[in-house]
Amino acid sequence: MPLGQRAGDNSESRYAGCEILRHTDDIEEALSSSLSAGFDFIVLPLTNPEYRPSKNAGLVPPFCGSDLVFSSTQWSSHVVGKLSDWIDLDGDDDVARLDSELVLKKELSWAGHLSVQACLLPTPKVFGCANYARCVNQVLQGLGNMQVCKRDPISNRLLNDSWEWWHMFRTLCEYHSQLGVALDITASLPPASAIKRWIGEPLKAAILHTSAFLTNKRGYPCLSKRHQSLITMLFNHSVQVCCSCSLCFTFDHWTDNGNSQDPLILYRDYVANLYRKLDPLTTQEQFELGYRDFLQAPLQPLMDNLEAQTYETFEKDATKYDQYQNAIRAALVDRVSDAEASTKTIVLMVVGAGRGPLVRASLKAAEECGRNLRVYAVEKNPNAVVTLSRLIKIEGWEDLVELVSCDMRHWDAPEQADILVSELLGSFGDNELSPECLDGAQRFLKKDGISIPSSYTSYIGPVTASKLYNDVKSYNDLSHFETAYVVKLHNAAPLAAPQPVFTFVHPTDNTDNRRYKRLVFNFSPDTGSALVHGFGGYFDAVLYKDIHLGIEPSTATPNMFSWFSIFFPLRTPIYVPAGALLELHFWRCVAPTKVWYEWSVTSPTVSPLHNPNGRSYWVGL
Amino acid sequence: MPLGQRAGDNSESRYAGCEILRHTDDIEEALSSSLSAGFDFIVLPLTNPEYRPSKNAGLVPPFCGSDLVFSSTQWSSHVVGKLSDWIDLDGDDDVARLDSELVLKKELSWAGHLSVQACLLPTPKVFGCANYARCVNQVLQGLGNMQVCKRDPISNRLLNDSWEWWHMFRTLCEYHSQLGVALDITASLPPASAIKRWIGEPLKAAILHTSAFLTNKRGYPCLSKRHQSLITMLFNHSVQVCCSCSLCFTFDHWTDNGNSQDPLILYRDYVANLYRKLDPLTTQEQFELGYRDFLQAPLQPLMDNLEAQTYETFEKDATKYDQYQNAIRAALVDRVSDAEASTKTIVLMVVGAGRGPLVRASLKAAEECGRNLRVYAVEKNPNAVVTLSRLIKIEGWEDLVELVSCDMRHWDAPEQADILVSELLGSFGDNELSPECLDGAQRFLKKDGISIPSSYTSYIGPVTASKLYNDVKSYNDLSHFETAYVVKLHNAAPLAAPQPVFTFVHPTDNTDNRRYKRLVFNFSPDTGSALVHGFGGYFDAVLYKDIHLGIEPSTATPNMFSWFSIFFPLRTPIYVPAGALLELHFWRCVAPTKVWYEWSVTSPTVSPLHNPNGRSYWVGL
Repeated sequence: MPLGQRAGDNSESRYAGCEILRHTDDIEEALSSSLSAGFDFIVLPLTNPEYRPSKNAGLVPPFCGSDLVFSSTQWSSHVVGKLSDWIDLDGDDDVARLDSELVLKKELSWAGHLSVQACLLPTPKVFGCANYARCVNQVLQGLGNMQVCKRDPISNRLLNDSWEWWHMFRTLCEYHSQLGVALDITASLPPASAIKRWIGEPLKAAILHTSAFLTNKRGYPCLSKRHQSLITMLFNHSVQVCCSCSLCFTFDHWTDNGNSQDPLILYRDYVANLYRKLDPLTTQEQFELGYRDFLQAPLQPLMDNLEAQTYETFEKDATKYDQYQNAIRAALVDRVSDAEASTKTIVLMVVGAGRGPLVRASLKAAEECGRNLRVYAVEKNPNAVVTLSRLIKIEGWEDLVELVSCDMRHWDAPEQADILVSELLGSFGDNELSPECLDGAQRFLKKDGISIPSSYTSYIGPVTASKLYNDVKSYNDLSHFETAYVVKLHNAAPLAAPQPVFTFVHPTDNTDNRRYKRLVFNFSPDTGSALVHGFGGYFDAVLYKDIHLGIEPSTATPNMFSWFSIFFPLRTPIYVPAGALLELHFWRCVAPTKVWYEWSVTSPTVSPLHNPNGRSYWVGL
Repeated sequence: MPLGQRAGDNSESRYAGCEILRHTDDIEEALSSSLSAGFDFIVLPLTNPEYRPSKNAGLVPPFCGSDLVFSSTQWSSHVVGKLSDWIDLDGDDDVARLDSELVLKKELSWAGHLSVQACLLPTPKVFGCANYARCVNQVLQGLGNMQVCKRDPISNRLLNDSWEWWHMFRTLCEYHSQLGVALDITASLPPASAIKRWIGEPLKAAILHTSAFLTNKRGYPCLSKRHQSLITMLFNHSVQVCCSCSLCFTFDHWTDNGNSQDPLILYRDYVANLYRKLDPLTTQEQFELGYRDFLQAPLQPLMDNLEAQTYETFEKDATKYDQYQNAIRAALVDRVSDAEASTKTIVLMVVGAGRGPLVRASLKAAEECGRNLRVYAVEKNPNAVVTLSRLIKIEGWEDLVELVSCDMRHWDAPEQADILVSELLGSFGDNELSPECLDGAQRFLKKDGISIPSSYTSYIGPVTASKLYNDVKSYNDLSHFETAYVVKLHNAAPLAAPQPVFTFVHPTDNTDNRRYKRLVFNFSPDTGSALVHGFGGYFDAVLYKDIHLGIEPSTATPNMFSWFSIFFPLRTPIYVPAGALLELHFWRCVAPTKVWYEWSVTSPTVSPLHNPNGRSYWVGL
């Protein structure tokens, strides 16, 4: 029974599980009692823990229960396999090591046979997990669809950050896409920023131990505020919660007293309660849901003509056009005093008018402040021009708006403009070549004319984003690692605040649009070490004076959905030790027919230069 | 005119050059005077150093001389291009940076037009060379056959190891195979181990400054002992020397006095003298010359039958058979006292007899010590058996030697052996499956019988070997990075002493031939930081008691050429900071039909596991 239902949210996190701690052969009873306690799945030990191949040579492995007890649908939807806890592949004892290897492989093979969806690997006993990783890696090479999750405590071990344990393991396994992590949550929690790292990891499950709970005044289990917000964050990132009654005596105590109710019910109910208290998804979140962590190629609006559907989506973004309308109004009021309002006519040119939303915003702004306007609507896409000409007729704008079917870079304007309005920005600001277009258009802007936007700045920051990294890697070629993607970053952990990269001002005297920026990011020592899979890119644009528009997280315009962030991947993820600096270099390069970025990291380690000469990714002029 | 001639050695290092320091348009004079001073090539500035595109807009770049002065053969054999020294791509001045980029690209393009074989890039002005590397990297993507060498001083800069400068640059350029390094040698030299690192780098030239020289009693230039041994080492590793008169006033002084002789002649003569004092190549070195740094797939002697040519080569290795003969004789004397010598007959089985060299060695040993022998010569290759049966007839060994055409693992022996003699060792000891073969053969060895060899151990050590790395990389697939190669390591720098990996003893009670070893290498802080491209593998075998045979460098058997070392590459080279530890894991894995190695580094950074399940490289059983 799901924990609850949130409109539009079909994430796996609404299913909760229950860890079966003790080995049992009555697996039917184990499942049915857990289901009746409200859980959706059980984490089931696969083998009798007494079994050691070296002592039980020739024996059929004593797997718990039988594959015939459940149907394969039941196995796959209700059971997660748990490998033997005693497995230790990096100890000094040769016999124990070879026993461990054999049992690990037999259990994973058996789990595959059962068609369970996932298996939990025990937490390694020592830090150096090379041999453990080797055995799992061998299995991963030929694994069917099963997920394998390594358990690690979220709380730091003495002197050792558990993330480091996970990092060594998964690096040895080369970030295999079927290798995930399950975090054991007990009473103590690391700092918030150290927890946040995990969001960008392939975090599949959280094993919530009863020891993590406090007891409230009425004797019921409850979680601390910090634990509550952790669980809430996990729910919001599709992580499944699994309850584990590590204090087993409680269990015995309860049943001894003839109380047949599974004590985990109380914990499960508490968790369900937390789930039901989740904030409902906003309209924007519901819209974005299907795009989360989904890589898209950026638009090439100069080389390609946008389709009606694309215009339709963007035109729905009311917030964006409200901001433009505010900016245009403010510019008009600055440009024409109240006294001149009835006599003076402002020449406003919308360059890249599309199907007309900025023309409408301009006319509305003029109406609001009672200024006279002559509008030129310049658009290069002949298909959009058709719609726009119809719009002008329908709205009766024939006397106000002149339609120009032309590329702004080559238009021979009949007069100079007071105000140039454009919306040519990409997720990274200049990446759809707004600078080159507006440099071409400023020929017909009066010397003291105004460009809206008047400037824009790109921002960039390092992120952990293992899902994106694996998606890029799955293309199995270099060029996808040297391409920027438009993506709604969700299961991605920002590791430092984004910093400004390139700024473009309009109009400008300097039309050299090549840029180079060196950025140094400080990683908070609180975070611990982390892995950088790439960089999230954003922009902020000044439309006019204090009216801005943007997606840079700290200043993002609310309720605007026209832009997702952009993601620049790294060919090899870069490990940044706790408290270290990350040095990034970013270039904007320009050639006669194209513009492209190159990027590289030089600290803490050196990456190769990405995308030399725009060999993999470029935007056509 | 070459510096000298060494029999069999046709390396480039016998040609020396001369750096032209001052810009000149009379390039014909510059070349002819250098040739007449005995040099083979000149390093020529390509452009007037006053030229700045920002100040000389529209100007045809003032390249020195003209492409018509020399024929293209002259350009390619006698001229190395030198880029403008003032180029600074990582300074704060935007104008200087863009000027530098333009001139760098124009000069490299011009050098390509001239078809010179190589160009020297100036030493960067600051450590952070990201933008410099980006520009060079862009050019490298489309470069013809030209080599590009970055100049770096061999002496450490204040607080900064010049190797680090080089390392950042070439990593940004992704170890491009056309990017090399040229070291400026002046008076001060770093520690010997820091110098040794460079041998594994793509070191193409050494620019020997006159300031590196001392003056001897007679007023002639000479080098310190340390400088002499450096130059000798460079000669031995195909590095070209280029003299540079950094003390130019000397030059002026000489010519002013009407002395028309180029002062560099004295330096050139000194260098030529050093060249002529090189030790002549030994027979073994001459044999190995053609195999230096040349990757070969290891033999698969179990799956494939060796060819006559291979037998022929190995049979020539007198040292090896002498050692076997000594070992067999010692074993015979131990086994049969002088008193029993005439009555007792020893059963000796040569398993893997090939074309008979070990049969011969056995019979010789018996003759030397006057013991009686009955020899079984077991060989699985039917072609070798043909040769062997002829040999027995020719030598008249019919009464002494019984020929068995059979795989030793499946032979049903008619009696038990006193001594089992084999030569099944690969470069890495067990890598040609000696353990599996001898485990099969020990069925017919008496309980107290002797195996020659009685044990063998593999050794491994980290190396810098950029040439090998680039050769592996040029295959452009994963599997070549997960394969071991037989190779005569020459332009490779060992970074720490090799350590023992796996030992096999024969006969043995334990026929489980799986192995796991964790190795920790200490890098001397004297070395500075270094890059590990992979691991050199060796073996040492105890034939009998104190008689050993092996290629582990510190104990290698002299004058033996049957084995080159083995090279295990890393998919991504690993940077080891000065004084850091390197942790390596090595596994020998066994399945019913094959044996393979897996390997991985876990410190200072973590590599993926190489060759899981033997997916890329294995030896068939």
